[in-house]
Amino acid sequence: MKEIFSNPSFKLGVLGGGQLGKMMLAETRRYDIYTVVMDPAADAPSRLASNEFVCGSLMDYNTVLDFGRGLDVLTIEIEHVNVDALEVLEGEGVKVFPQPRALRIIQNKAVQKQFYKDHQLPTSDFFTFENAEELHEGLKKGNWKPPFVWKAATGGYDGFGVNIVRTEADIQNLPNQAGLVEAFVPFEKEIAVIVARNENGEVVSYPVVEMEFHPTANQVEYVLCPAHISPEAAEKAKELAEKTIAAYDLVGLLAVEMFLAKDGNIYINEVAPRTHNSGHLTIESNFTSQFEQHVRAVTNMPLGSTDLRIPAVMANLVGDKGYSGPVKYEGYRDLLAMRGVYIHLYGKSSTRPFRKMGHVTATHTDRAEARAAAEKAKDAIRVQSR
Amino acid sequence: MKEIFSNPSFKLGVLGGGQLGKMMLAETRRYDIYTVVMDPAADAPSRLASNEFVCGSLMDYNTVLDFGRGLDVLTIEIEHVNVDALEVLEGEGVKVFPQPRALRIIQNKAVQKQFYKDHQLPTSDFFTFENAEELHEGLKKGNWKPPFVWKAATGGYDGFGVNIVRTEADIQNLPNQAGLVEAFVPFEKEIAVIVARNENGEVVSYPVVEMEFHPTANQVEYVLCPAHISPEAAEKAKELAEKTIAAYDLVGLLAVEMFLAKDGNIYINEVAPRTHNSGHLTIESNFTSQFEQHVRAVTNMPLGSTDLRIPAVMANLVGDKGYSGPVKYEGYRDLLAMRGVYIHLYGKSSTRPFRKMGHVTATHTDRAEARAAAEKAKDAIRVQSR
Repeated sequence: MKEIFSNPSFKLGVLGGGQLGKMMLAETRRYDIYTVVMDPAADAPSRLASNEFVCGSLMDYNTVLDFGRGLDVLTIEIEHVNVDALEVLEGEGVKVFPQPRALRIIQNKAVQKQFYKDHQLPTSDFFTFENAEELHEGLKKGNWKPPFVWKAATGGYDGFGVNIVRTEADIQNLPNQAGLVEAFVPFEKEIAVIVARNENGEVVSYPVVEMEFHPTANQVEYVLCPAHISPEAAEKAKELAEKTIAAYDLVGLLAVEMFLAKDGNIYINEVAPRTHNSGHLTIESNFTSQFEQHVRAVTNMPLGSTDLRIPAVMANLVGDKGYSGPVKYEGYRDLLAMRGVYIHLYGKSSTRPFRKMGHVTATHTDRAEARAAAEKAKDAIRVQSR
Repeated sequence: MKEIFSNPSFKLGVLGGGQLGKMMLAETRRYDIYTVVMDPAADAPSRLASNEFVCGSLMDYNTVLDFGRGLDVLTIEIEHVNVDALEVLEGEGVKVFPQPRALRIIQNKAVQKQFYKDHQLPTSDFFTFENAEELHEGLKKGNWKPPFVWKAATGGYDGFGVNIVRTEADIQNLPNQAGLVEAFVPFEKEIAVIVARNENGEVVSYPVVEMEFHPTANQVEYVLCPAHISPEAAEKAKELAEKTIAAYDLVGLLAVEMFLAKDGNIYINEVAPRTHNSGHLTIESNFTSQFEQHVRAVTNMPLGSTDLRIPAVMANLVGDKGYSGPVKYEGYRDLLAMRGVYIHLYGKSSTRPFRKMGHVTATHTDRAEARAAAEKAKDAIRVQSR
């Protein structure tokens, strides 16, 4: 095994250079790991702090192949990448984590959903379809009535590609594309567990977090840790997350989003095979951040402690409605003096409504205080344009 | 006042791009502050994560002048810089923090020592001299007998330029250069306080740390926080640090190294007008790290909380004796699984005996446990060459 630290002949590659990549680079810098990043945007946040930055398409076969050759380990910060190229690279001896076969399943939400069924991992009832015709046949055959959830098989991100179908009229407006329909789970909470696994098979899970969604944008507004759920539910969530990463036989990080249903059962909603918005608060609240853990997992280092140092609440800072263009932040000065409140800006040069531009994490021994501070911060900071 | 965050037309300059600059860049990236760094070494740690990196001499008048023009704020990570150029830049409207006049005093240890006397800030007895002749006259005149301390006026760093004179024979070996002689303080502990001050005059101090020195290398081996001293002594140390930054009228960070004497008095040893080795543990142990605080202070942002989150012990990782050349780290794998132990590597490509290559911070609710973990880590990690 090559030395990883301070060794310019060990190269870690990252596909995608957005905020997740940027926050990971803080860790690769701390360990002095030579890191090469590719992103289609020349001004991507990871253009800085990487040892090499390449501007290129993540979906283009030849571009990904060229990028990956000569790397020791190749990982991702976004799952929308060319998996065919990754499979070739894997065959050529590059360690690709998460593995291409897992990415292929996860990239397609219909295939992903079927995977849970095939592996007896609890998930809500569903059926999949290739187009609108099959969708309508399926609804009729299964006698599906609103409310239910419609999801595009591919192309969804940050709440896009998901429709909550509430009325018969909503059904007529669904697009003609491949996807799945799933039962709407009357849930108590939406929760998530991030689980990490290295090549040696070591597995660690983070404490369960709960999510609060923006009432209209279908985006996570707050992530809270620890989740206020029973110890039994927390244990069950952790077990489900660990079973899921084992089912995928995945090396790296897996963020497992789940519903804690009103009946006490837990269902997998969907997963992300990488660092995730629900884990941003680990930077301040856990002994090892998700970003460091990801680096450890894909380079087969011993995994770090996931224990909570202090409760925390994370709020996304998204672009204000009505503003597009070069970003300008307002209203943050007073917050800087608040103890335990941390502002993270992603270094994106342009804002647009609801674009994730940064986040704020508030920590406090009392989670309710952290929640109040996060709300205060979120409401004070304005993400506008110049 | 210009916007500071995500504003490419606001430029923060940093003279020096070693480990202190590198750790500061983690914070400027978090706030997306456009940062320009100059260092004489093309492979300096700060070549990455800065928006612009310039290779140039910090002591050359024209080089520093050219670098500083067009910057909004100019700061340092090392005090050995061309102060004449900084004074011109200040006159031209660049905000230079710490201010050149404070740097001029601090750069010269004899002048610095006299400054404390002039400002009634407690420091050990001393006299200054321009050369060996004046030194020997002064020793005779003042009837100085070993043990005492000899310090070069300029050029000292990391324990170099300091001699503990123990015998009459040692006196004969002292070099012929300007410096000072000071009384050897029979001290209980060597302690330090980092104090920050912004342009608005806001002042905050970090909890007192204590230092343990390497028995032979005259380098700090461990920094421990909190210091195990009486609350009265801690309060006195804090007051002295705050009086000192006020005397310098300094904007930025001031690390004040002090002796807690056996008689209970506290004496200033020396100061550094910047982030400092004694503050590395603030990254993990305090609500605001010294690196973030430095950025806040020099850009006139509200200062952050200096409260302790958890006790911590920092150990420097220095090059092993007998190894010079491209660095290779060994023995760290088992440490990665230790909860609350953080390894920082500075990204220096070459090691040499006793060169500061990184540090490890161990955190624990019980300081003794943190001390044990830091020692274990320090003893396990070998900094050698390939």
